[in-house]
Amino acid sequence: MNKKPLPGEFELIARYLAPLATACPGAFGLADDAAVLDVSPDRRLVVTVDAMAAGTHFLRDDPADLVARKLLRVNLSDLAAMGAAPLAYLTTLALDGEADAAWLEAFAAGLAADQAQFGLALAGGDTIRTDGPTVLTITALGTVAGPSPLRRNGARPGDLVYVSGTIGDGALGLAALKGELDQLDDGARTQLAERYRLPQPRLALGQALVGVASAAIDVSDGLVADLTHICAASDVAAEIETARVPLSTAAQQALAGQPDLLERVLSGGDDYELLFTVPPDAEGEATEAAATAGVEIAAIGRVTASDPELDKVRVTGPDGDIIALESAGYEHF
Amino acid sequence: MNKKPLPGEFELIARYLAPLATACPGAFGLADDAAVLDVSPDRRLVVTVDAMAAGTHFLRDDPADLVARKLLRVNLSDLAAMGAAPLAYLTTLALDGEADAAWLEAFAAGLAADQAQFGLALAGGDTIRTDGPTVLTITALGTVAGPSPLRRNGARPGDLVYVSGTIGDGALGLAALKGELDQLDDGARTQLAERYRLPQPRLALGQALVGVASAAIDVSDGLVADLTHICAASDVAAEIETARVPLSTAAQQALAGQPDLLERVLSGGDDYELLFTVPPDAEGEATEAAATAGVEIAAIGRVTASDPELDKVRVTGPDGDIIALESAGYEHF
Repeated sequence: MNKKPLPGEFELIARYLAPLATACPGAFGLADDAAVLDVSPDRRLVVTVDAMAAGTHFLRDDPADLVARKLLRVNLSDLAAMGAAPLAYLTTLALDGEADAAWLEAFAAGLAADQAQFGLALAGGDTIRTDGPTVLTITALGTVAGPSPLRRNGARPGDLVYVSGTIGDGALGLAALKGELDQLDDGARTQLAERYRLPQPRLALGQALVGVASAAIDVSDGLVADLTHICAASDVAAEIETARVPLSTAAQQALAGQPDLLERVLSGGDDYELLFTVPPDAEGEATEAAATAGVEIAAIGRVTASDPELDKVRVTGPDGDIIALESAGYEHF
Repeated sequence: MNKKPLPGEFELIARYLAPLATACPGAFGLADDAAVLDVSPDRRLVVTVDAMAAGTHFLRDDPADLVARKLLRVNLSDLAAMGAAPLAYLTTLALDGEADAAWLEAFAAGLAADQAQFGLALAGGDTIRTDGPTVLTITALGTVAGPSPLRRNGARPGDLVYVSGTIGDGALGLAALKGELDQLDDGARTQLAERYRLPQPRLALGQALVGVASAAIDVSDGLVADLTHICAASDVAAEIETARVPLSTAAQQALAGQPDLLERVLSGGDDYELLFTVPPDAEGEATEAAATAGVEIAAIGRVTASDPELDKVRVTGPDGDIIALESAGYEHF
């Protein structure tokens, strides 16, 4: 296949990146030294950054538009977990020789589609060459209303544990892409792979949960690992029941044929759903927040007092027995 | 040499990065999904990002603390060019197999030294593995007072063109490190190499120039290229005189022995001085701003009306003749 080489720095910015910045007046067409943004006096700035390397976090053959959208959405999911609304983003592209004009065009098209969908725009960036695999980063900026963003540290014994959407699709999608789930029908495999490739950041739900949820996190390391993060930050423990963990029809099909995938569902990462705790007297508000956001939520367990003799997160099966998990979750490094 | 391997993700954050975040309460010890920062209602947010790849922008043998400090300072220089004061920064580290615990410890020590010096702290980040050369990024956040940050687009015919500090040391320092300036004495070579490795972001000067300078940029692509950027954004042209371009004693020594290095001085990048324009009636205020910031500034030329028949930036030598430059400046991609 003929490769169309990338143009020089200024032409590259003008052609592929500046169009992404037109909706951000403070980006000055990417033609100044930095971007200038306004944060409303009644809101606080929220900022997060994520990096992905070719060969480690995505494959060279992955469609570049999906790579871009996943990187942006992973960041938006972090904003969602704080209850923030998106404001703008910056990107760095350290491009290797594999990245040609067609790759960058598709990458920019992915960003264009998602920034329109999620209501933010490019505020700045840097594009460099690297000898090695391409490394991409996005810094996402958002704002949160009021003095109290969603945090991990507010869960209290007696609170209910909720998740949004369905759990396990990310990990099963990765397994499907690796050819591990051949017993599934094509539709289910595609559905799971899509969930892995294109997470849905729960921005509306996160914002609606500010002042309602006592703690929140997005499920990126895995359900059990991320609940453990909440428990550690809040100095509490938690119990969840596998029977109450919401599963997609595709995940149900996968588990019916191969019950030992349950471990993958509970410990795998990349779901990017919100996992949050709610005081018992705020259950109604949580239901209302979910309805406002148009997202399903499910109560899967309860926060308990911290007990040094027990695991921070205990998972019980349908028979009430505690399930021992081999892996606590995914470490991204 | 024995390598001490890097620990896992959470241990790595706790040991090397979380200590850099203690001065940033909204970083929550790097233990939440994102950082939450407050921007004063009377200030605007300024944000910029830069990336560096091993083998391209720094050498594997470069001291890691200097690599860290240069990356941070390059970002701070962008903030300075907008007239912003530093607020916080985020970093992504895509580390290859060469980066061991000693490397990361030195890298973190470099950040610790500079964040104390420049008054900001780590607010977040991401650390990943890459098969290829290490790629590092820093996103810097700052705030600027009042409605009008320094921009590139406000230069008007008749304005004076100023630079801070001395010009050309960055490019000559790189040449010295490559062994090209063997005729220089050791002291001069070291002085130039230090300037290349450890730029001085002109933060105090930038802030003092808000409301005084009509346009500003930091000298990263090269004096002539960066003045061309101001001229393009402002739709003007400019004339500068080589005799008025401030040179360090080391650069003077280099030029005395090898006059053709003048081209390198005018076109080389990496000085990270401020280049700015000042209306004639604000000369006194500019002098005062420089005195407040404790930085030398020098008037090196004048802004003229745009003329499509002439170069945007004309450089005249001591005899008044226009000097033709082979290279307009450095493209960082």
